[in-house]
Amino acid sequence: MSFASHDSATKQSAGHAITAEDIQAGGAKATEDVARYALQLGDDALMLSQRLGWWIARAPELEEDIALANIALDLLGHARFFLTYAGTAWGKTEDDLAYFRDEEQFRSCRLVEQENGDFGQTIARQLIFSYYQYELYRRLVHSSDPTLAAIADKALKEVQYHQDHAGQWVLRLGLGTEESKRRIQAGLHCMWPYVDELFHDDELIDALGDAAVRPSELRADFDVRLKAVLDEAELSVPEVLGAYGGDRSGQFSEQRGHILAEMQVLARRHPGATW
Amino acid sequence: MSFASHDSATKQSAGHAITAEDIQAGGAKATEDVARYALQLGDDALMLSQRLGWWIARAPELEEDIALANIALDLLGHARFFLTYAGTAWGKTEDDLAYFRDEEQFRSCRLVEQENGDFGQTIARQLIFSYYQYELYRRLVHSSDPTLAAIADKALKEVQYHQDHAGQWVLRLGLGTEESKRRIQAGLHCMWPYVDELFHDDELIDALGDAAVRPSELRADFDVRLKAVLDEAELSVPEVLGAYGGDRSGQFSEQRGHILAEMQVLARRHPGATW
Repeated sequence: MSFASHDSATKQSAGHAITAEDIQAGGAKATEDVARYALQLGDDALMLSQRLGWWIARAPELEEDIALANIALDLLGHARFFLTYAGTAWGKTEDDLAYFRDEEQFRSCRLVEQENGDFGQTIARQLIFSYYQYELYRRLVHSSDPTLAAIADKALKEVQYHQDHAGQWVLRLGLGTEESKRRIQAGLHCMWPYVDELFHDDELIDALGDAAVRPSELRADFDVRLKAVLDEAELSVPEVLGAYGGDRSGQFSEQRGHILAEMQVLARRHPGATW
Repeated sequence: MSFASHDSATKQSAGHAITAEDIQAGGAKATEDVARYALQLGDDALMLSQRLGWWIARAPELEEDIALANIALDLLGHARFFLTYAGTAWGKTEDDLAYFRDEEQFRSCRLVEQENGDFGQTIARQLIFSYYQYELYRRLVHSSDPTLAAIADKALKEVQYHQDHAGQWVLRLGLGTEESKRRIQAGLHCMWPYVDELFHDDELIDALGDAAVRPSELRADFDVRLKAVLDEAELSVPEVLGAYGGDRSGQFSEQRGHILAEMQVLARRHPGATW
Protein backbone atom coordinates (compact mmCIF):
# COMPACT_ATOMS: atom_id res chain seq x y z
CA MET A 1 0.00 0.00 0.00
CA SER A 2 1.22 3.50 -0.65
CA PHE A 3 1.41 6.46 1.63
CA ALA A 4 -1.44 7.89 -0.41
CA SER A 5 -3.82 5.77 1.63
CA HIS A 6 -3.12 8.18 4.49
CA ASP A 7 -4.62 10.96 2.44
CA SER A 8 -7.68 9.13 1.23
CA ALA A 9 -8.73 8.12 4.71
CA THR A 10 -8.96 11.64 5.99
CA LYS A 11 -9.54 13.66 2.88
CA GLN A 12 -12.53 15.94 3.14
CA SER A 13 -14.57 15.66 -0.03
CA ALA A 14 -15.51 19.05 -1.35
CA GLY A 15 -19.25 19.55 -1.34
CA HIS A 16 -19.85 17.26 1.63
CA ALA A 17 -18.25 19.40 4.23
CA ILE A 18 -20.76 18.68 6.95
CA THR A 19 -19.32 19.06 10.44
CA ALA A 20 -20.52 18.16 13.92
CA GLU A 21 -20.79 21.88 14.60
CA ASP A 22 -22.98 22.32 11.53
CA ILE A 23 -25.38 19.76 12.89
CA GLN A 24 -25.55 21.50 16.23
CA ALA A 25 -25.80 24.97 14.71
CA GLY A 26 -28.11 23.98 11.85
CA GLY A 27 -31.06 23.60 14.14
CA ALA A 28 -32.18 20.21 12.78
CA LYS A 29 -33.78 18.41 15.71
CA ALA A 30 -33.94 14.64 15.63
CA THR A 31 -37.19 12.95 16.61
CA GLU A 32 -37.00 10.54 19.52
CA ASP A 33 -36.95 7.52 17.19
CA VAL A 34 -34.37 9.00 14.85
CA ALA A 35 -32.22 9.89 17.84
CA ARG A 36 -32.35 6.31 19.11
CA TYR A 37 -31.34 5.11 15.66
CA ALA A 38 -28.53 7.66 15.40
CA LEU A 39 -27.31 6.42 18.76
CA GLN A 40 -26.95 2.87 17.41
CA LEU A 41 -25.00 4.08 14.40
CA GLY A 42 -22.86 6.39 16.47
CA ASP A 43 -22.13 3.83 19.17
CA ASP A 44 -20.96 1.29 16.61
CA ALA A 45 -18.51 3.79 15.18
CA LEU A 46 -17.40 5.02 18.59
CA MET A 47 -16.67 1.59 20.01
CA LEU A 48 -14.74 0.45 16.96
CA SER A 49 -12.70 3.64 16.92
CA GLN A 50 -11.69 3.01 20.53
CA ARG A 51 -10.68 -0.55 19.71
CA LEU A 52 -8.67 0.45 16.64
CA GLY A 53 -6.96 3.28 18.47
CA TRP A 54 -5.11 0.66 20.50
CA TRP A 55 -3.09 -0.25 17.41
CA ILE A 56 -1.54 3.17 16.99
CA ALA A 57 1.68 2.14 18.72
CA ARG A 58 1.51 -1.54 17.95
CA ALA A 59 0.91 -2.30 14.28
CA PRO A 60 3.45 -4.48 12.47
CA GLU A 61 4.55 -1.62 10.17
CA LEU A 62 4.76 2.15 10.64
CA GLU A 63 2.58 2.53 7.57
CA GLU A 64 -0.04 0.27 9.10
CA ASP A 65 0.04 2.26 12.34
CA ILE A 66 -0.96 5.25 10.27
CA ALA A 67 -3.63 3.41 8.29
CA LEU A 68 -5.39 1.95 11.35
CA ALA A 69 -5.17 5.23 13.24
CA ASN A 70 -6.71 7.03 10.29
CA ILE A 71 -9.56 4.55 10.15
CA ALA A 72 -10.07 5.03 13.89
CA LEU A 73 -10.20 8.78 13.33
CA ASP A 74 -12.69 8.46 10.49
CA LEU A 75 -14.95 6.37 12.71
CA LEU A 76 -14.61 8.80 15.57
CA GLY A 77 -15.67 11.52 13.16
CA HIS A 78 -18.76 9.55 12.17
CA ALA A 79 -19.54 8.91 15.83
CA ARG A 80 -19.38 12.62 16.53
CA PHE A 81 -21.89 13.33 13.76
CA PHE A 82 -24.38 10.72 14.89
CA LEU A 83 -24.08 11.47 18.60
CA THR A 84 -24.35 15.19 18.03
CA TYR A 85 -27.50 14.64 16.01
CA ALA A 86 -28.95 12.20 18.54
CA GLY A 87 -28.27 14.73 21.27
CA THR A 88 -30.48 17.35 19.59
CA ALA A 89 -33.50 15.30 20.66
CA TRP A 90 -32.54 15.41 24.33
CA GLY A 91 -30.59 18.64 24.72
CA LYS A 92 -27.35 16.73 25.14
CA THR A 93 -23.91 17.12 23.58
CA GLU A 94 -21.82 14.45 21.90
CA ASP A 95 -19.58 14.42 24.98
CA ASP A 96 -22.56 13.93 27.31
CA LEU A 97 -23.56 10.91 25.27
CA ALA A 98 -20.06 9.47 24.88
CA TYR A 99 -18.84 9.95 28.42
CA PHE A 100 -21.87 10.07 30.69
CA ARG A 101 -24.03 7.18 29.62
CA ASP A 102 -23.73 3.93 31.50
CA GLU A 103 -22.96 0.59 29.96
CA GLU A 104 -26.57 -0.51 29.48
CA GLN A 105 -27.41 2.75 27.70
CA PHE A 106 -25.03 2.13 24.82
CA ARG A 107 -26.43 0.54 21.67
CA SER A 108 -23.36 -0.81 19.93
CA CYS A 109 -23.34 -4.23 18.30
CA ARG A 110 -21.12 -6.84 19.83
CA LEU A 111 -18.87 -7.21 16.78
CA VAL A 112 -17.25 -3.81 17.29
CA GLU A 113 -16.72 -4.51 20.98
CA GLN A 114 -14.71 -7.67 20.41
CA GLU A 115 -11.08 -7.61 21.48
CA ASN A 116 -8.42 -6.76 18.93
CA GLY A 117 -6.75 -10.14 19.41
CA ASP A 118 -3.94 -10.57 16.93
CA PHE A 119 -3.74 -8.67 13.67
CA GLY A 120 -5.73 -11.42 11.92
CA GLN A 121 -8.68 -10.94 14.27
CA THR A 122 -8.58 -7.18 13.88
CA ILE A 123 -8.55 -7.42 10.10
CA ALA A 124 -11.37 -10.00 10.13
CA ARG A 125 -13.46 -7.61 12.24
CA GLN A 126 -12.59 -4.75 9.88
CA LEU A 127 -13.60 -6.78 6.85
CA ILE A 128 -16.97 -7.77 8.26
CA PHE A 129 -17.81 -4.39 9.71
CA SER A 130 -16.70 -2.25 6.77
CA TYR A 131 -18.55 -4.45 4.27
CA TYR A 132 -21.69 -4.21 6.43
CA GLN A 133 -21.30 -0.45 6.90
CA TYR A 134 -20.81 0.10 3.20
CA GLU A 135 -24.10 -1.62 2.41
CA LEU A 136 -25.79 0.37 5.15
CA TYR A 137 -24.49 3.82 4.30
CA ARG A 138 -24.97 3.51 0.55
CA ARG A 139 -28.67 3.07 1.27
CA LEU A 140 -28.85 5.57 4.13
CA VAL A 141 -27.88 8.38 1.74
CA HIS A 142 -31.51 8.10 0.55
CA SER A 143 -32.96 8.45 4.05
CA SER A 144 -36.04 10.66 4.33
CA ASP A 145 -34.21 12.34 7.23
CA PRO A 146 -31.89 14.86 5.54
CA THR A 147 -29.35 14.95 8.38
CA LEU A 148 -28.94 11.17 8.46
CA ALA A 149 -28.61 11.24 4.66
CA ALA A 150 -25.92 13.91 4.82
CA ILE A 151 -23.92 12.06 7.48
CA ALA A 152 -24.12 8.82 5.49
CA ASP A 153 -22.98 10.61 2.37
CA LYS A 154 -19.95 12.00 4.17
CA ALA A 155 -19.11 8.68 5.81
CA LEU A 156 -19.61 6.50 2.75
CA LYS A 157 -16.47 7.73 0.99
CA GLU A 158 -14.37 6.91 4.02
CA VAL A 159 -15.97 3.50 4.51
CA GLN A 160 -15.11 2.65 0.92
CA TYR A 161 -11.48 3.14 1.84
CA HIS A 162 -11.89 1.04 5.01
CA GLN A 163 -13.31 -1.74 2.85
CA ASP A 164 -10.41 -1.57 0.42
CA HIS A 165 -7.93 -1.57 3.28
CA ALA A 166 -9.47 -4.65 4.93
CA GLY A 167 -9.92 -6.44 1.61
CA GLN A 168 -6.29 -5.90 0.62
CA TRP A 169 -5.08 -7.25 3.94
CA VAL A 170 -7.34 -10.29 3.71
CA LEU A 171 -5.86 -11.08 0.30
CA ARG A 172 -2.32 -10.50 1.54
CA LEU A 173 -2.84 -12.74 4.56
CA GLY A 174 -4.97 -15.38 2.82
CA LEU A 175 -2.51 -15.76 -0.07
CA GLY A 176 0.61 -15.25 2.08
CA THR A 177 2.21 -17.96 4.18
CA GLU A 178 0.56 -20.99 5.70
CA GLU A 179 0.67 -19.23 9.08
CA SER A 180 -0.86 -15.98 7.82
CA LYS A 181 -3.65 -17.94 6.14
CA ARG A 182 -4.30 -19.89 9.33
CA ARG A 183 -4.48 -16.70 11.38
CA ILE A 184 -6.87 -14.74 9.17
CA GLN A 185 -9.11 -17.79 8.88
CA ALA A 186 -9.03 -18.13 12.67
CA GLY A 187 -9.82 -14.41 12.96
CA LEU A 188 -12.89 -14.82 10.77
CA HIS A 189 -13.99 -17.82 12.80
CA CYS A 190 -13.65 -15.83 16.00
CA MET A 191 -15.67 -12.82 14.75
CA TRP A 192 -18.33 -14.72 12.83
CA PRO A 193 -20.73 -15.38 15.73
CA TYR A 194 -21.35 -11.62 15.86
CA VAL A 195 -22.35 -11.21 12.21
CA ASP A 196 -26.04 -12.09 12.61
CA GLU A 197 -26.65 -9.25 15.04
CA LEU A 198 -25.71 -6.70 12.35
CA PHE A 199 -28.70 -7.73 10.26
CA HIS A 200 -31.27 -8.00 13.03
CA ASP A 201 -34.43 -5.86 12.56
CA ASP A 202 -35.63 -4.41 15.86
CA GLU A 203 -38.94 -2.69 16.65
CA LEU A 204 -37.35 0.70 16.16
CA ILE A 205 -36.84 -0.02 12.47
CA ASP A 206 -40.60 -0.45 11.93
CA ALA A 207 -41.27 2.90 13.54
CA LEU A 208 -38.66 4.71 11.45
CA GLY A 209 -39.97 3.85 7.99
CA ASP A 210 -38.02 5.55 5.21
CA ALA A 211 -35.75 7.39 7.61
CA ALA A 212 -33.79 4.21 8.33
CA VAL A 213 -32.38 1.23 6.48
CA ARG A 214 -33.79 -2.19 7.31
CA PRO A 215 -30.75 -4.28 8.40
CA SER A 216 -32.16 -7.59 7.13
CA GLU A 217 -32.25 -6.15 3.62
CA LEU A 218 -28.48 -5.71 3.58
CA ARG A 219 -27.67 -9.34 4.21
CA ALA A 220 -27.91 -10.76 0.69
CA ASP A 221 -25.54 -8.17 -0.81
CA PHE A 222 -23.20 -8.50 2.14
CA ASP A 223 -23.02 -12.28 1.76
CA VAL A 224 -22.32 -12.14 -1.96
CA ARG A 225 -19.64 -9.50 -1.72
CA LEU A 226 -17.94 -11.00 1.32
CA LYS A 227 -17.89 -14.45 -0.24
CA ALA A 228 -16.27 -12.98 -3.36
CA VAL A 229 -13.33 -11.53 -1.43
CA LEU A 230 -12.95 -14.66 0.69
CA ASP A 231 -12.95 -16.83 -2.44
CA GLU A 232 -10.28 -14.66 -4.02
CA ALA A 233 -8.21 -14.94 -0.83
CA GLU A 234 -8.73 -18.72 -0.82
CA LEU A 235 -10.47 -18.53 2.54
CA SER A 236 -13.79 -20.04 3.53
CA VAL A 237 -16.92 -18.51 5.01
CA PRO A 238 -16.92 -19.76 8.62
CA GLU A 239 -19.60 -22.22 9.61
CA VAL A 240 -20.27 -21.12 13.16
CA LEU A 241 -23.51 -20.55 14.99
CA GLY A 242 -24.45 -16.96 15.74
CA ALA A 243 -23.85 -15.83 19.33
CA TYR A 244 -26.91 -15.86 21.56
CA GLY A 245 -28.85 -12.60 21.84
CA GLY A 246 -28.51 -9.55 19.68
CA ASP A 247 -30.51 -6.63 20.96
CA ARG A 248 -27.67 -4.11 21.36
CA SER A 249 -28.70 -3.73 25.02
CA GLY A 250 -25.33 -4.67 26.37
CA GLN A 251 -26.80 -7.39 28.53
CA PHE A 252 -24.91 -10.02 26.54
CA SER A 253 -21.75 -7.97 26.09
CA GLU A 254 -18.65 -8.99 27.97
CA GLN A 255 -16.42 -6.25 26.57
CA ARG A 256 -18.41 -3.05 26.63
CA GLY A 257 -17.68 -2.22 30.25
CA HIS A 258 -13.94 -2.51 29.73
CA ILE A 259 -13.97 -0.16 26.74
CA LEU A 260 -16.08 2.39 28.59
CA ALA A 261 -13.97 2.22 31.73
CA GLU A 262 -10.97 3.33 29.74
CA MET A 263 -12.80 5.84 27.58
CA GLN A 264 -14.83 7.58 30.25
CA VAL A 265 -12.50 7.81 33.22
CA LEU A 266 -10.92 11.17 32.48
CA ALA A 267 -14.08 12.96 31.40
CA ARG A 268 -15.94 11.69 34.45
CA ARG A 269 -13.18 12.61 36.84
CA HIS A 270 -12.95 16.12 35.42
CA PRO A 271 -16.31 17.03 33.91
CA GLY A 272 -15.87 19.70 31.27
CA ALA A 273 -12.13 19.01 31.31
CA THR A 274 -11.61 22.37 32.89
CA TRP A 275 -10.70 20.89 36.24
CA MET B 1 -11.58 24.78 18.71
CA SER B 2 -13.51 23.84 15.62
CA PHE B 3 -13.66 20.58 13.79
CA ALA B 4 -11.67 22.28 11.06
CA SER B 5 -8.54 21.67 13.13
CA HIS B 6 -8.89 18.04 12.10
CA ASP B 7 -8.34 19.05 8.50
CA SER B 8 -5.42 21.34 9.02
CA ALA B 9 -3.43 18.77 10.94
CA THR B 10 -3.45 16.23 8.16
CA LYS B 11 -3.95 18.32 5.07
CA GLN B 12 -1.36 17.68 2.40
CA SER B 13 -0.12 21.00 1.09
CA ALA B 14 -0.01 21.05 -2.69
CA GLY B 15 3.53 21.49 -3.91
CA HIS B 16 5.08 19.81 -0.89
CA ALA B 17 3.76 16.35 -1.57
CA ILE B 18 6.93 14.56 -0.57
CA THR B 19 6.30 10.99 0.60
CA ALA B 20 8.40 8.38 2.31
CA GLU B 21 8.24 6.37 -0.89
CA ASP B 22 9.56 9.35 -2.86
CA ILE B 23 12.57 9.47 -0.61
CA GLN B 24 13.23 5.79 -1.09
CA ALA B 25 12.56 5.88 -4.83
CA GLY B 26 14.26 9.22 -5.44
CA GLY B 27 17.71 7.76 -5.01
CA ALA B 28 18.98 10.46 -2.63
CA LYS B 29 21.48 8.73 -0.35
CA ALA B 30 22.21 10.25 3.01
CA THR B 31 25.82 10.53 4.14
CA GLU B 32 26.71 8.76 7.38
CA ASP B 33 26.59 12.04 9.35
CA VAL B 34 23.32 13.20 7.78
CA ALA B 35 21.81 9.79 8.51
CA ARG B 36 22.79 10.04 12.17
CA TYR B 37 21.22 13.49 12.30
CA ALA B 38 18.05 12.29 10.55
CA LEU B 39 17.86 9.51 13.12
CA GLN B 40 17.77 12.04 15.96
CA LEU B 41 15.01 14.02 14.29
CA GLY B 42 13.06 10.90 13.38
CA ASP B 43 13.40 9.31 16.81
CA ASP B 44 12.08 12.44 18.52
CA ALA B 45 9.00 12.39 16.31
CA LEU B 46 8.53 8.64 16.61
CA MET B 47 8.69 8.54 20.39
CA LEU B 48 6.32 11.45 20.84
CA SER B 49 3.83 9.95 18.39
CA GLN B 50 3.80 6.75 20.44
CA ARG B 51 3.21 8.70 23.64
CA LEU B 52 0.41 10.79 22.14
CA GLY B 53 -1.26 7.78 20.57
CA TRP B 54 -2.16 6.65 24.08
CA TRP B 55 -4.65 9.51 24.32
CA ILE B 56 -6.79 8.35 21.42
CA ALA B 57 -9.31 6.67 23.69
CA ARG B 58 -8.74 8.78 26.74
CA ALA B 59 -8.90 12.50 26.03
CA PRO B 60 -11.41 14.59 27.97
CA GLU B 61 -13.45 15.41 24.84
CA LEU B 62 -14.13 13.55 21.59
CA GLU B 63 -12.79 16.52 19.70
CA GLU B 64 -9.57 16.39 21.69
CA ASP B 65 -9.23 12.68 20.99
CA ILE B 66 -9.19 13.58 17.33
CA ALA B 67 -6.81 16.50 17.72
CA LEU B 68 -4.20 14.55 19.68
CA ALA B 69 -4.48 11.55 17.41
CA ASN B 70 -3.96 13.78 14.39
CA ILE B 71 -0.88 15.30 15.96
CA ALA B 72 0.40 11.79 16.68
CA LEU B 73 -0.18 10.89 13.04
CA ASP B 74 1.60 13.99 11.79
CA LEU B 75 4.61 13.11 13.94
CA LEU B 76 4.56 9.52 12.79
CA GLY B 77 4.58 10.83 9.23
CA HIS B 78 7.65 13.00 9.98
CA ALA B 79 9.34 10.02 11.64
CA ARG B 80 8.76 7.94 8.53
CA PHE B 81 10.42 10.60 6.36
CA PHE B 82 13.47 10.95 8.55
CA LEU B 83 13.92 7.24 9.21
CA THR B 84 13.47 6.37 5.55
CA TYR B 85 16.11 8.91 4.64
CA ALA B 86 18.48 7.77 7.39
CA GLY B 87 18.04 4.20 6.17
CA THR B 88 19.39 5.08 2.71
CA ALA B 89 22.86 5.36 4.24
CA TRP B 90 22.78 1.83 5.61
CA GLY B 91 20.47 -0.07 3.25
CA LYS B 92 17.76 -0.23 5.90
CA THR B 93 14.04 0.52 5.78
CA GLU B 94 12.07 2.74 8.15
CA ASP B 95 10.63 -0.40 9.73
CA ASP B 96 14.10 -1.88 10.28
CA LEU B 97 15.06 1.28 12.11
CA ALA B 98 11.83 1.64 14.11
CA TYR B 99 11.41 -1.96 15.16
CA PHE B 100 14.82 -3.60 15.12
CA ARG B 101 17.09 -1.18 16.88
CA ASP B 102 17.75 -1.70 20.55
CA GLU B 103 17.20 0.84 23.26
CA GLU B 104 20.72 2.26 23.25
CA GLN B 105 20.60 2.78 19.47
CA PHE B 106 17.75 5.28 19.60
CA ARG B 107 18.62 8.96 19.66
CA SER B 108 15.49 10.59 21.00
CA CYS B 109 15.62 13.38 23.55
CA ARG B 110 14.24 12.62 26.98
CA LEU B 111 11.45 15.19 26.81
CA VAL B 112 9.48 13.17 24.25
CA GLU B 113 9.93 10.00 26.27
CA GLN B 114 8.36 11.42 29.42
CA GLU B 115 5.12 9.84 30.57
CA ASN B 116 1.85 11.41 29.55
CA GLY B 117 0.88 12.01 33.16
CA ASP B 118 -2.32 13.99 33.35
CA PHE B 119 -3.57 16.21 30.56
CA GLY B 120 -1.63 19.16 32.00
CA GLN B 121 1.67 17.31 31.69
CA THR B 122 0.90 16.21 28.15
CA ILE B 123 0.05 19.74 27.08
CA ALA B 124 3.15 21.13 28.79
CA ARG B 125 5.27 18.62 26.86
CA GLN B 126 3.44 19.56 23.64
CA LEU B 127 4.03 23.25 24.23
CA ILE B 128 7.75 22.87 24.83
CA PHE B 129 8.36 20.40 22.05
CA SER B 130 6.28 22.08 19.35
CA TYR B 131 7.84 25.48 20.08
CA TYR B 132 11.28 23.91 19.86
CA GLN B 133 10.42 21.99 16.69
CA TYR B 134 9.03 25.08 15.04
CA GLU B 135 12.28 26.99 15.58
CA LEU B 136 14.22 23.98 14.31
CA TYR B 137 12.23 23.26 11.16
CA ARG B 138 11.85 26.84 10.07
CA ARG B 139 15.67 26.93 9.87
CA LEU B 140 16.10 23.41 8.51
CA VAL B 141 14.17 24.36 5.36
CA HIS B 142 17.41 26.13 4.36
CA SER B 143 19.55 23.02 4.91
CA SER B 144 22.22 22.39 2.29
CA ASP B 145 20.88 18.84 2.17
CA PRO B 146 17.87 19.04 -0.16
CA THR B 147 16.08 16.03 1.32
CA LEU B 148 16.29 17.34 4.88
CA ALA B 149 15.09 20.71 3.59
CA ALA B 150 12.11 19.14 1.83
CA ILE B 151 11.10 17.10 4.89
CA ALA B 152 11.35 20.17 7.12
CA ASP B 153 9.26 22.18 4.69
CA LYS B 154 6.54 19.52 4.74
CA ALA B 155 6.65 19.14 8.52
CA LEU B 156 6.77 22.85 9.34
CA LYS B 157 3.16 23.48 8.33
CA GLU B 158 1.96 20.75 10.62
CA VAL B 159 4.14 21.82 13.51
CA GLN B 160 2.63 25.28 13.26
CA TYR B 161 -0.72 23.69 13.95
CA HIS B 162 0.73 21.69 16.86
CA GLN B 163 2.04 24.93 18.33
CA ASP B 164 -1.33 26.61 18.02
CA HIS B 165 -3.05 23.63 19.57
CA ALA B 166 -0.71 23.53 22.57
CA GLY B 167 -0.75 27.31 22.97
CA GLN B 168 -4.55 27.45 22.99
CA TRP B 169 -4.73 24.74 25.64
CA VAL B 170 -2.14 26.46 27.80
CA LEU B 171 -4.23 29.63 27.70
CA ARG B 172 -7.41 27.73 28.42
CA LEU B 173 -5.88 25.92 31.37
CA GLY B 174 -3.82 28.84 32.68
CA LEU B 175 -6.78 31.22 32.62
CA GLY B 176 -9.36 28.59 33.60
CA THR B 177 -9.99 27.47 37.13
CA GLU B 178 -7.58 27.48 40.04
CA GLU B 179 -7.19 23.73 39.62
CA SER B 180 -6.51 23.88 35.87
CA LYS B 181 -3.91 26.58 36.44
CA ARG B 182 -2.26 24.51 39.15
CA ARG B 183 -2.10 21.48 36.90
CA ILE B 184 -0.63 23.12 33.83
CA GLN B 185 1.94 24.90 35.98
CA ALA B 186 2.79 21.55 37.60
CA GLY B 187 3.02 19.97 34.12
CA LEU B 188 5.53 22.62 33.06
CA HIS B 189 7.52 22.09 36.22
CA CYS B 190 7.62 18.38 35.58
CA MET B 191 8.80 18.67 31.95
CA TRP B 192 11.20 21.57 32.39
CA PRO B 193 14.28 19.55 33.43
CA TYR B 194 14.32 18.10 29.91
CA VAL B 195 14.36 21.43 28.06
CA ASP B 196 18.14 21.97 28.14
CA GLU B 197 18.84 18.78 26.24
CA LEU B 198 16.92 20.09 23.23
CA PHE B 199 19.46 22.87 22.77
CA HIS B 200 22.61 20.85 23.36
CA ASP B 201 25.19 20.95 20.52
CA ASP B 202 26.87 17.59 20.05
CA GLU B 203 29.98 16.74 18.00
CA LEU B 204 27.79 15.64 15.09
CA ILE B 205 26.57 19.20 14.61
CA ASP B 206 30.11 20.44 13.96
CA ALA B 207 30.62 17.80 11.30
CA LEU B 208 27.35 18.61 9.53
CA GLY B 209 27.93 22.29 8.84
CA ASP B 210 25.15 23.86 6.76
CA ALA B 211 23.23 20.62 6.45
CA ALA B 212 22.02 20.87 10.05
CA VAL B 213 20.72 23.48 12.46
CA ARG B 214 22.78 24.25 15.54
CA PRO B 215 20.47 23.58 18.52
CA SER B 216 22.03 26.21 20.77
CA GLU B 217 21.09 28.88 18.24
CA LEU B 218 17.39 28.15 18.70
CA ARG B 219 17.34 28.84 22.41
CA ALA B 220 16.96 32.62 22.43
CA ASP B 221 13.94 32.63 20.11
CA PHE B 222 12.42 29.70 21.95
CA ASP B 223 12.76 31.45 25.31
CA VAL B 224 11.21 34.68 24.07
CA ARG B 225 8.26 33.02 22.36
CA LEU B 226 7.58 30.57 25.17
CA LYS B 227 7.73 33.30 27.78
CA ALA B 228 5.21 35.31 25.76
CA VAL B 229 2.62 32.56 25.77
CA LEU B 230 3.22 31.75 29.44
CA ASP B 231 2.85 35.43 30.33
CA GLU B 232 -0.41 35.61 28.44
CA ALA B 233 -1.61 32.49 30.25
CA GLU B 234 -0.52 34.01 33.60
CA LEU B 235 1.90 31.16 34.17
CA SER B 236 5.54 31.35 35.12
CA VAL B 237 8.63 29.92 33.50
CA PRO B 238 9.67 27.12 35.86
CA GLU B 239 12.86 27.56 37.81
CA VAL B 240 14.16 24.02 37.87
CA LEU B 241 17.60 22.64 37.22
CA GLY B 242 18.10 20.72 33.98
CA ALA B 243 18.20 16.94 34.35
CA TYR B 244 21.63 15.38 34.42
CA GLY B 245 23.04 14.20 31.09
CA GLY B 246 21.76 14.96 27.66
CA ASP B 247 23.53 12.97 25.00
CA ARG B 248 20.48 11.22 23.51
CA SER B 249 22.24 7.90 24.15
CA GLY B 250 19.47 6.50 26.24
CA GLN B 251 21.80 5.81 29.14
CA PHE B 252 19.93 8.33 31.27
CA SER B 253 16.48 7.45 29.99
CA GLU B 254 14.11 5.64 32.29
CA GLN B 255 11.20 5.52 29.84
CA ARG B 256 12.63 4.56 26.48
CA GLY B 257 12.64 0.83 27.13
CA HIS B 258 8.97 0.83 28.08
CA ILE B 259 7.95 2.65 24.91
CA LEU B 260 9.98 0.33 22.73
CA ALA B 261 8.72 -2.80 24.44
CA GLU B 262 5.20 -1.88 23.44
CA MET B 263 6.05 -0.59 20.00
CA GLN B 264 8.35 -3.37 18.86
CA VAL B 265 6.76 -6.52 20.22
CA LEU B 266 4.56 -7.38 17.27
CA ALA B 267 7.07 -6.58 14.52
CA ARG B 268 9.77 -8.56 16.30
CA ARG B 269 7.56 -11.52 16.92
CA HIS B 270 6.46 -11.62 13.29
CA PRO B 271 9.19 -10.06 11.16
CA GLY B 272 7.74 -8.72 7.94
CA ALA B 273 4.29 -9.13 9.44
CA THR B 274 3.69 -11.96 7.04
CA TRP B 275 3.80 -14.58 9.76
